[in-house]
Amino acid sequence: MVEVRPYVYDDVAAMVEIWNEVVRDGIAFPQENELSLEEGAEFFAAQTHCGVAVEDGAVLGLYILHPNNIGRCGHIANASYAVSSAARGRGAGRALVVDSLEQGRAYGFRVMQFNAVVATNAGARHLYEKLGFVQLGTIPGGFRMPDGTYADICPYYHEL
Amino acid sequence: MVEVRPYVYDDVAAMVEIWNEVVRDGIAFPQENELSLEEGAEFFAAQTHCGVAVEDGAVLGLYILHPNNIGRCGHIANASYAVSSAARGRGAGRALVVDSLEQGRAYGFRVMQFNAVVATNAGARHLYEKLGFVQLGTIPGGFRMPDGTYADICPYYHEL
Repeated sequence: MVEVRPYVYDDVAAMVEIWNEVVRDGIAFPQENELSLEEGAEFFAAQTHCGVAVEDGAVLGLYILHPNNIGRCGHIANASYAVSSAARGRGAGRALVVDSLEQGRAYGFRVMQFNAVVATNAGARHLYEKLGFVQLGTIPGGFRMPDGTYADICPYYHEL
Repeated sequence: MVEVRPYVYDDVAAMVEIWNEVVRDGIAFPQENELSLEEGAEFFAAQTHCGVAVEDGAVLGLYILHPNNIGRCGHIANASYAVSSAARGRGAGRALVVDSLEQGRAYGFRVMQFNAVVATNAGARHLYEKLGFVQLGTIPGGFRMPDGTYADICPYYHEL
């Protein structure tokens, strides 16, 4: 039974490992540089909120939540999700997204926006759409894939 | 005859004044804090590029150009435009947008994206659409107006 809870410092090593796996895959995050343990601790601490999906004490995945913009658009949140490849298909992704919407609301954000969902990432898009996210068109070639080609990206939003 | 050229340090005072006018209006930029001369000098220097629209030696407006995101989405540019209220209707806005597209292309960006065009900003939207920008749907309540109400925002993109 996957549960999502706020992260604590003892989770950081597992979070960094899972985050870096997605960075290495290179097909979902804009980020290209893996985090060291120290960089990870700083990066996660700088977020508005981070949640971890845990099952039997093991961290299966995480999300980071922060403002998507500043000032007059500072009530729009943005989140990124990462699930360990070994733990996919167990509902951790869905649990993380649902929790991030609840936490976004609790922090006073009014909208959740994703800027760069890779168009070929069918699993993520299907999940977001089932949870009520609305697609904001398609930006042609918005994401540079590891082989140097460019994939389309689909922004999404969800009112909170 | 309005011309657009790269800014130089001597333009910064006029650029700060025009920028701050748009910030004070509170209906176009996410930014809520006016820039001092020193902050402005630092802010403009930190951009990929800034252009100024000039006529008879006077600065009528400016734009800032920078990456909209990092890493695998770092080839998407973002720009903001400001025209002095006294100089509106003389084509400075159009000249700035056209130059920003050319400069974005010259710097190697592949897409220009605007994140937060306020839906009620009909003049800007009409200009962007005439210049070939494609609207990415509408984010309800994405912009907090000076009176505390929320206006919709329309992201746009333009391939370069």
